[in-house]
Amino acid sequence: MEFKDLIKRNRSYRRFRQDHMIDMDTLKELVDFARLSASSGNIQGLKFLLSVDTQKNSKIFKHLKWAYYLKNWDGPGEGERPAGYIIILGDTEIHSTIEVDVGIAAQSILLGAVERGLGGCMIGSLNRPGLRKDLKIPMKYQIPLVIALGEPGEEIILEQVDETGNIQYWRDKNDVHHVPKRSLDEIVLYC
Amino acid sequence: MEFKDLIKRNRSYRRFRQDHMIDMDTLKELVDFARLSASSGNIQGLKFLLSVDTQKNSKIFKHLKWAYYLKNWDGPGEGERPAGYIIILGDTEIHSTIEVDVGIAAQSILLGAVERGLGGCMIGSLNRPGLRKDLKIPMKYQIPLVIALGEPGEEIILEQVDETGNIQYWRDKNDVHHVPKRSLDEIVLYC
Repeated sequence: MEFKDLIKRNRSYRRFRQDHMIDMDTLKELVDFARLSASSGNIQGLKFLLSVDTQKNSKIFKHLKWAYYLKNWDGPGEGERPAGYIIILGDTEIHSTIEVDVGIAAQSILLGAVERGLGGCMIGSLNRPGLRKDLKIPMKYQIPLVIALGEPGEEIILEQVDETGNIQYWRDKNDVHHVPKRSLDEIVLYC
Repeated sequence: MEFKDLIKRNRSYRRFRQDHMIDMDTLKELVDFARLSASSGNIQGLKFLLSVDTQKNSKIFKHLKWAYYLKNWDGPGEGERPAGYIIILGDTEIHSTIEVDVGIAAQSILLGAVERGLGGCMIGSLNRPGLRKDLKIPMKYQIPLVIALGEPGEEIILEQVDETGNIQYWRDKNDVHHVPKRSLDEIVLYC
């Protein structure tokens, strides 16, 4: 697949075909893409906690906050939830977490997922103490980001941000998810 | 190209074939990949300053710090310097910079560059006040990262981090660059 197509198809999916399972080998392959990606000072201070197990998935799911702008939606219902998770951890024994590294790793993981017919969402809004407790994540690990993964079960359309400058995503009456993106002209500067 | 090959070929290149020019359209295409990538809360607070001009490239180059671990190397010499730059800026009128977004954008840009036969390096160690002054970058923009780009002019080999845990990259007597990476077993956790 051309990289441009991979980028376009890599949307933030929040509804999945939950019965489409993911196996552990696939998650490891995705983490390997993160492993081989750049790290600030080559420090490689990130760790990756994986889940494809129904019970463990439920433990993770309940601590996640979904789609801030969709006030009338509490997140994916039973049947449309993620089939797996990659939780990105920062190993403070190596370094305090470098957020740029988190973004690099997460993008490598999600682009690789799209190539495999999967998709996902980076979730930074979560109940960290609750997740730590339920999964027994040692205190030496920070929890910068959770990546939810599965076979996408929703349509997402990119729009252009209009003159109001509103960047909030929204859903239409057919439950299609729309995401306004700023134009190239707006974000490229010539100093 | 398979995504795995893109990931493997996307190394942090610091020496280039400087006479291989990059055109502005290519840089815009790469920024478009960043534009279409995820942004925390879809806020899209990043801007991108582009350079393919020899004079402007020189102004940028002199503020960059190269390869921290190579104490006897002051950075690429004339003839092996980057042919272009994408400077990632954070627009504080939109939001204080979200570092995860910087990593996502930078990774999209570099993977796209590799598909085009280019390569580059994310540089976070730089003289920000000097760069701001020379390029007249307004104070409302933070300068989280500079991406140097060009046709790669060096060989880079990935190694496995050995039992000493040393992650410092090094160059052998043939000037080949070696980068130790932690193993998948070391970075995948099972809680």
